[in-house]
Amino acid sequence: MLDTVYVNDRFLPSGAAQLPVSDLSILRGYGVFDYFRFAGGKPRFLDDHLARLQDSIDALHLELKVTDRGLTDIVHELIERNGGGDGGIRIVVTGGLSADGYTPTAPTLLLLGYPHLSPPTERYAMGCHCMLHHYERQLPRVKSIDYLEGIRIQPLLQQRGAQYPLYVDRDGLVRESDRSNFLIVHDGSLVTPYEDILLGITRKHLLKLARQLNIPVEERAVSVAELLGADEAILCSTVKGALPITRVDGKEIGAGAAGATTRKLMQAWAEYR
Amino acid sequence: MLDTVYVNDRFLPSGAAQLPVSDLSILRGYGVFDYFRFAGGKPRFLDDHLARLQDSIDALHLELKVTDRGLTDIVHELIERNGGGDGGIRIVVTGGLSADGYTPTAPTLLLLGYPHLSPPTERYAMGCHCMLHHYERQLPRVKSIDYLEGIRIQPLLQQRGAQYPLYVDRDGLVRESDRSNFLIVHDGSLVTPYEDILLGITRKHLLKLARQLNIPVEERAVSVAELLGADEAILCSTVKGALPITRVDGKEIGAGAAGATTRKLMQAWAEYR
Repeated sequence: MLDTVYVNDRFLPSGAAQLPVSDLSILRGYGVFDYFRFAGGKPRFLDDHLARLQDSIDALHLELKVTDRGLTDIVHELIERNGGGDGGIRIVVTGGLSADGYTPTAPTLLLLGYPHLSPPTERYAMGCHCMLHHYERQLPRVKSIDYLEGIRIQPLLQQRGAQYPLYVDRDGLVRESDRSNFLIVHDGSLVTPYEDILLGITRKHLLKLARQLNIPVEERAVSVAELLGADEAILCSTVKGALPITRVDGKEIGAGAAGATTRKLMQAWAEYR
Repeated sequence: MLDTVYVNDRFLPSGAAQLPVSDLSILRGYGVFDYFRFAGGKPRFLDDHLARLQDSIDALHLELKVTDRGLTDIVHELIERNGGGDGGIRIVVTGGLSADGYTPTAPTLLLLGYPHLSPPTERYAMGCHCMLHHYERQLPRVKSIDYLEGIRIQPLLQQRGAQYPLYVDRDGLVRESDRSNFLIVHDGSLVTPYEDILLGITRKHLLKLARQLNIPVEERAVSVAELLGADEAILCSTVKGALPITRVDGKEIGAGAAGATTRKLMQAWAEYR
């Protein structure tokens, strides 16, 4: 974590940043968050992230008193206090301190800075391996702090030689990964689910970029069969950008290496602002 | 909260009990807990609660270093330091402090004391009102800290004049409430689900008590139709004991007041040790 964080209404050294044990995140997992990068001291897609955070806050009926303008100012000051450069910022909003251990009060606000972390470079070259896993995120449109299943299956992923899960719903549709959206390339089109997923900011901009590159885009459900038969497959997230998927449950996708469309998107993404 | 709490390896004044913001409960809602009562300075059904807590810990692949014997000693000392008498104790075990914000480390252990709180007396006399709500708890056998949906729908409950939800699964079966199990009385038998629910300790002992009272017990799925047509219905939990349900989605259950079997169980429960 970077040296300086923001808790409720003040900047603190990260080592001193603590929450009382009656916070509803600790007692009841009740909270939402968002995460964005900053590069050269400037936050990326901040308006998108703050808009999504507000939607998450509203879904949990929390009433954060800080405005978007206020949050934006805090973000810029936090980046500056941490010396600018490159990194990531997590904004967490919880149900606050609760005397009865259940009823939300004034929300707790956290802004935490992190060094910039990407997956290892070779993973972009060789692609990543995914494991299909039956699971549906609750409140899929909400970026809640609920990662019970994503974290719980990490040992299983390791056993299977996979790096990321792909969640399959009760209808056999592939929805999303634990912290990423996913896309496939099928007959030259980029196809990605829209319903019942977290609408990623990277996903949004990657689709915009694809349209600029004249790659046809379809937002629709994707079945397991369609994924396994895809020409190419991609994970995308704020941390990952666009990362090729070359194996799912041990089966090669496409040629088993990043395909032409994926490489084109990855290249263009590196320049995208 | 009672004056003295236990955090990781020491007793503290509750006002000083805090967790670093890198705790996985705060960042990822990753944790489990259990809650039991103490009366006259003695914990109730402690072995049952500690056994269930260990199952929850195992399900999340956490490795708590304290033994059951160790926990039992801490519980007794915590009750004593808080002056004995009546109350409740919550044991929380989280994924611990995580540098990468995702990978669990040495678990955080919390023991928090609370004054004894029951629903208002008139609710036992008049019964409570429940609202049917489509929802399935993830990891239903695990007492995780995930109460996103239970807390999120509190305003909806109030709007509908209900005090508690009853979660209905995709097959139209009524599974459980947010913090309670439920039972119905049908043709003189006590009927309650067994699959895909949290196996409550109060539920377990209430069924034992019913058998002692020669009330036939059936553990099987209960449909919405069967609940709405039941002679009597009951919520049960550590905090509530046995609480009559007299209305579901506005519809009266049985005669709209606690029925004969419910009253018999409530009376016997008050004496049960």
